[in-house]
This record gives sequence, structure tokens and C-alpha cells, in this order.
Amino acid sequence: MNIKNRIAAALIMAAMTLSSFASSPIVTQVPERPAGQSDMVGFAADPIDTVRVGVIGLGMRGASAVDRLIKVPGAKVVAICDIEMPRVEKSLQYFDKAGLPRAAAYGGKEDSWKELVERPDLDLIYIVTDWKNHTPMALYAMEQGKHAAIEVPAAMNLDEIWALINTSERTRRHCMMLENCVYDFFEMNTLNMAQQGLFGEVLHVEGSYIHNLEEFWPYYWNNWRMDYNREHRGDVYPTHGTGPACQLLDMHRGDRMTTLVAMDTKAVNAPAYIERTTGKAPESFANGDHTMTMIRTAEGKTLHIQHDVVNPRPYSRMYQLTGTKGFANKYPMEGYAFEPAQLANDEVPDHENLSAHGYISDAQRQALTEKYIHPIIKEVGEVAKSVGGHGGMDYIMDYRLIYCLRNGLPLDMDVYDLAEWCSLIPLSALSIENGSAPVEVPDFTRGNWQKIKGYRHAFKN
Amino acid sequence: MNIKNRIAAALIMAAMTLSSFASSPIVTQVPERPAGQSDMVGFAADPIDTVRVGVIGLGMRGASAVDRLIKVPGAKVVAICDIEMPRVEKSLQYFDKAGLPRAAAYGGKEDSWKELVERPDLDLIYIVTDWKNHTPMALYAMEQGKHAAIEVPAAMNLDEIWALINTSERTRRHCMMLENCVYDFFEMNTLNMAQQGLFGEVLHVEGSYIHNLEEFWPYYWNNWRMDYNREHRGDVYPTHGTGPACQLLDMHRGDRMTTLVAMDTKAVNAPAYIERTTGKAPESFANGDHTMTMIRTAEGKTLHIQHDVVNPRPYSRMYQLTGTKGFANKYPMEGYAFEPAQLANDEVPDHENLSAHGYISDAQRQALTEKYIHPIIKEVGEVAKSVGGHGGMDYIMDYRLIYCLRNGLPLDMDVYDLAEWCSLIPLSALSIENGSAPVEVPDFTRGNWQKIKGYRHAFKN
Repeated sequence: MNIKNRIAAALIMAAMTLSSFASSPIVTQVPERPAGQSDMVGFAADPIDTVRVGVIGLGMRGASAVDRLIKVPGAKVVAICDIEMPRVEKSLQYFDKAGLPRAAAYGGKEDSWKELVERPDLDLIYIVTDWKNHTPMALYAMEQGKHAAIEVPAAMNLDEIWALINTSERTRRHCMMLENCVYDFFEMNTLNMAQQGLFGEVLHVEGSYIHNLEEFWPYYWNNWRMDYNREHRGDVYPTHGTGPACQLLDMHRGDRMTTLVAMDTKAVNAPAYIERTTGKAPESFANGDHTMTMIRTAEGKTLHIQHDVVNPRPYSRMYQLTGTKGFANKYPMEGYAFEPAQLANDEVPDHENLSAHGYISDAQRQALTEKYIHPIIKEVGEVAKSVGGHGGMDYIMDYRLIYCLRNGLPLDMDVYDLAEWCSLIPLSALSIENGSAPVEVPDFTRGNWQKIKGYRHAFKN
Repeated sequence: MNIKNRIAAALIMAAMTLSSFASSPIVTQVPERPAGQSDMVGFAADPIDTVRVGVIGLGMRGASAVDRLIKVPGAKVVAICDIEMPRVEKSLQYFDKAGLPRAAAYGGKEDSWKELVERPDLDLIYIVTDWKNHTPMALYAMEQGKHAAIEVPAAMNLDEIWALINTSERTRRHCMMLENCVYDFFEMNTLNMAQQGLFGEVLHVEGSYIHNLEEFWPYYWNNWRMDYNREHRGDVYPTHGTGPACQLLDMHRGDRMTTLVAMDTKAVNAPAYIERTTGKAPESFANGDHTMTMIRTAEGKTLHIQHDVVNPRPYSRMYQLTGTKGFANKYPMEGYAFEPAQLANDEVPDHENLSAHGYISDAQRQALTEKYIHPIIKEVGEVAKSVGGHGGMDYIMDYRLIYCLRNGLPLDMDVYDLAEWCSLIPLSALSIENGSAPVEVPDFTRGNWQKIKGYRHAFKN
């Protein structure tokens, strides 16, 4: 082959790569699983009679977490920590009010939390700080032999996600994200209906975080949340919408997310808020006012996730499922629709009036909810409502975490759920920064997504 | 430079192209505007005192179109046509019932419609046939000097779209798609509120066609609709959702769609329906049960469009807008939300109770609707309701078409609206067939999308 031919051949090869590349997604690096380490799918730790908890972060969410945890059977809050001591003092009062001995108090310094984590008398570190501290604290907790429970989002980028996975796999410690929205009443009961086959095959699920945060912005320590939005494009808070959707779709229990594309609007209201409250417009603002993500799974199903925290919209997590035999919708009103045949043998009134074109009646919905009430809601729903925390779902989350640890069961959410739900943050940014290019969603289980068939909560015998 | 270096240089060049290509959308060919031809933005034809109409296609939609058109002031249905003569006979009875002379009747042959179009005493050809005949009939109508009004979707691929644009530009004939959903009451009044600035800057709009067609499938002539779905991926019926969204976003009146990505689920319910009704599963079925499209505009705004005609869901066109100062939602319930300041000076009751977190009350919504009622709804809304046709919107559409032709005004929808709204069909397919790759949306005005600032209906002085 002469020079010209060799160059031509090289260019043809390159062009061939080029044309196939047009339809290939952006691929991120999947670190090889270190030798001697195995996956955490279905992992259960030894039972713990009384789960000794240390709580880090006592701001808006953390203080109420302390108040709830001291009410959960089998949990003992041993130590609490915040960088601001007045917050620690305030949370200690929950113990007084409950007639319990006060927890050990940590705080005042940037690294006070490490002293808490290092205590030998803790089983679980419960992390409720700003987003950027979630992963470092969880890693340290697992290294110190503790299980880690982390507020949402537990990780903000792929490095953090893979670090949490590898550390959990190596230390054999649970690493659970505290995604409360999978425990809300409508979501739980609907999940139960889905698992009983009432919707046929669930094909498409939607979720979102649509919540105007205007009145909350001043209360984030050091302005961390607005700063994060100012610096990052993409859906920076996707887990409330993604969590319930992924449970419905049995993610890494027989199916997995494969391709993601995202798109956003320009940023208008967030920089306007900064200008209005500080008198100075920010030089730049990365996060679009409205962000959308579409995801396809290996089994040909889809998710649609949205994020909007700055426009004047009614609160919505969009929770919606489309199945081959039925449909469910939570916002702005709870409703179900079914193929008439789906409910023909059920003991709900007026089933002959069911129409594939309309929502079932309120009476039918109530009857259906009673019939398909999720076992966990049945067990703890009333107590949860009386304790409170976003209407009860926060308590159910804590209750289940402690219940599973006490009984040596797999937790309701594992480190791969955390990884999948948080991965939308970096992957949606990657797509948007590349003109809405498709991005491959890594298999965070590294080959084990079909080991378990179907998502189910664990119960003791 | 030796051989090795030259090959290396070629490969580096190729690699550089490669990496930039990853974020470049798929581009379709924009045919150059033929010499001597100019755009149709803002085009108005000479006034026509009595608009003489020929209607082609008298099936589900066409028969009711005849019944409506004979009631529109200034319209005269001169001729009607269908391939099946019994349908023609049936439609002639509308004239008897109205005490009008019968229209000339055409039909029975594949090309009977051409005889109708060739009549010298027609101003407007109103086309209500199957999708595949829309464009050929409209092209022939314009070539014969008639204005063309075409049911949705007017065109199914880019060749058809560009042919309609070029023919309209060359013949100086209107080419309007009969998109009725832009004339529904909530949409019209909300558009008026948007144009009055009540929502601030409209950033994001949603729309869809979610309609379980199970009971309709048997009634499409020659099974054309199911066949089209069987053969084509992508959103094959996007205009009901896209039309109202594009009017809110002033498409090609100061802004334009630039990038589109689409994604679908696998096909389950449609092939299952075929198997259930014919006893034989189709060998292949292209159209996914659920299809989503996201679109970004030059001004950094977004659209989200969905299509689902096979799953058991309540009817929904999803119509929803997110603005910097307000929010509107039509399905499953009509609602508005605003920043409190937006309505402070308005005469709506209880404005002090407005909250950015919740929908305004029913009473507030009614007061707002009365205050911002669209002038066209005010003029013709009550008559439209009494004539009917999807609750009145079909009549308003016909009324406006005839009104604008009679008064020599630009039509409410021009050939570029048709092009933009229909372009989702081929472009969403292109994206999906390439792994949800981004696709560039052509500028169908070929450089004239900023000629008019803001979408407005035309009125005589």
C-alpha cells in the first residue's frame, strides 16, 4: 500500500467510526471491581438488637430526623453533631421532651463529625448535612465499620457514586440513601398494586421535584444549595422523582437504565432571585429554570423526570405510571384508570362503570386502596401519621431502616439504588452540556442487575 | 513528513472531528428557496366575499366538517367527495336538513377528488382524508389556484413538508392545517393571559395526544391508521399537543425550535390488539406504546410532547405552561398558579390568598377567565358550543378560517406552523432510530422567523 492509500484507508476507517458515533451514546468510565470484592445485591448484615445511631447535621431536616428516630422502636440515638452548637442544643431538647437521656453532643468544628463517627458504640451513621458533605461522611462511616444512611442526594458525581459503591462492597456495610418519597402512602399502595399485576406491564413512569424554594433559600447553611445550582447544570435533585419510578420498574432487579437524554431551559428566575435579594445579578448561573430527563431501560421501558425549584408552580412529584392494563397519577390529583377487565373480579363497587377513558370514581379508588393497602402502610401507617414528617413518610422510612437492620434483612434501598438515582445528576449535566446528546447509564452493579427478579420489600418470617 | 506522521496527522484530525461530532445534532437537508419565490410569513390573500368550499373525505371527521361549515357565516359548501358513495349520500342530507341546496357530489373512484379540485367555482379545498392523501391533495389544490385546509397531520415526512412550503410560496395560496386544539376554550383564554404577560416569560410548555383509540381502530378506512403505526416509529400524531404549545412560545414569530430528542417504549399493547382482533400477532410493530419528545428553542425555552394511543389512560392533551410568574395546567384538572404580585391589582376575589405553592381557587379562576376571556371566544364561543364539534373548538376553527379569508387577513395558522408541528413526525423518528440522538429542527421559514414579533390573531379593523 502506498502513502496515499494508507492515508485514505485511515480516513475511511475514521469516517466509519464517525458515522456510527452519531448514534452512539456518550460513555463514562466504569471502574473495574477490585479483586476480592463482591456485589451488595441482596446483602444483609447480622441482626442488631438495638440500633445505635449517630446523627450528623441538625438543620432543617436533621433536627426533625432526631425527633423521629427517638420514637422508632429499637433505635437509640447515641450521639448527635452539627457545626453550629446552638442547633445541637436545640436538638438535645427532643430527648428531654421524650424523657430520654440526652445523646452525646458534638459540634462547633469543621471536623467534629469525625469524632462522632469514630465512637465504637454506634451501628449507623445518619447523615443530614449539605450535599457536598454527604459522600465524604458516608465513606468515613463505612471505613469505621458503621452502616451509612445519607440524605438525598447522597452523591453528586460519578466519582462519589463509585467511591460509595466500592467502599460499601469492600467494607460489607450498608450504604442507603434516605429517599423518603418512596414511602408516601399513594406511592406505596400503588407499588403494591403494580406488584400484584393490576397495571399489567408497567411501561412508562414519571417523577419530578417541582417545588418553589423561594421561601427556603435563606435557610441553607452558607447558601450551599443556591451556590450548587449556580455552579451546575443538569437535574441536581432528581431522587424524589426517580426513586418511586425505579421501584416500579424493578431497576437492577431484572431491568436497568441504559440511555439518558436531558434538556433544560435557560436560567431566569434563579438569577433574578439573587439580583432581587442581593442587589447584584450573578455573573453566570448554570442551572436552567426547568430541566427534563428521559431514560430508556434494557427492557424497552421509559422514565421521564423533571426538576424546577424556581418557578411559581404547585408542588408536584409528578408520580405517574402507564401500564398495559392500567394507569396511576398522583399530581395534581390522585387517580387510577384501568382496562375494565382488570377489576371485573374485584370487590370494588360499580366495576361495570370502569372505563379505559376515565378515572375510576372516588368510591372505587377508596375501595381499591383498602384492598391493595401496602403491608408496610397497614403495619405502621397510622403511627407514622401521628409522628409526622412530610405526612408520615419520613417516619416509615426510619422505621423500615431500623426494622431491617434489627432483623438482619436487606434494606429497602441498596447502594445501587443510591447510585442509579443519583447518577442523573452528573449524567443529565453531561447530556445537556453536549447538546442533549444521549448518555449511557452505567450498570452500577457491574453485571449483577439480573440476580434478583423484581423489587420487593423484605420481611422477617 | 514521513508516512507514519502523515497517517497520525490524519487520524488526529479525524479524532478531533469525532469529538466535536459527539455534541452535534443530526442535520436534515434544507432545500434552497427557488429563485423568484418569497416567504409566506404574514401573507394575506385578497378578501373573498363568500368562501366557496370543496370538502374531500367524509368519514368520521369529514362528515361533521360539512355539517359545521354549512353553518359558518360566509361559507358555502359547493362540492363534496368521498371514495365511498354511501358516505357522500349521507353527508348530502346535512344540506337537506339545513334547507340548503345540495352540494355537487363526487366519489366512487380513487381520483374522484381531482374532479372536485378542478372545479373553477371553488376558493378553498378542505381535506379530511387519511393521512397519506393529505399532502398530495393539498398540493394539487394549490396548483389549481385554491387555498388548502388540511386535517392533522397535514404532512408525514420532510419531503411532504417542503413540498407544501414551496408550493404555497410559489402559488401564493394559503396552506393551513386544521389543528382544532388551539381553539379550545381553556387554551384560547390561557393564550390571551400569556399574551397579556400574566405568566411572565413562558419558559416551558407541554402537550400530548394521549387517547386510547381501541374503540376507534375498526373505523379507519382500509385500516390506514393502525397500518401507519405498525410501519413507523416516532410521534406520528403530535400536532394537537404541539400546536397550542407553539402558539404560546411565538414559534417563527421571534423564536424557533432548534434541537429535538425523542424516546419511546417498546410496542406492547398495539401488537396485542392486532393479535386479539385478528388472531395473528404482527411480524413486527414499529411504533412504541409511549413516545416522548423534548425540543429546545433558539431563546432557550423547551417543549415536551407525548403520544400514547394504546394504553388505558384518561384522555389528555397535557396542555401545561411554566412561566417565570405563573403556571397553567389543563389535564387532569384546569388550574392556574401565580406569584402573588402578579394578580395584586386585579379584580379577582381573595387575591391576598394567592400562593406560589398552590392553585388559585375555583372562584378566582372563574373571575380570571372572565377578565381574560379571549376576544374570539367572547365573539363566537356561545355559538360554537351550540353547533358543537369537540365542545365547540371545531366550529371556532372553521369560523376563523372563513373569517380571515373573507376579510383578507393572514390565517391563524400558516404553512410554517404546519411544517413545524408536523416536523415532529419525521424528526422524532430520526432521533429514536439513532438512539435518541439530538436532531436539528430546520428553520422552515428559511431565514424569516424573526420577521414578526409575537403570535397574534388577525382581526378586521
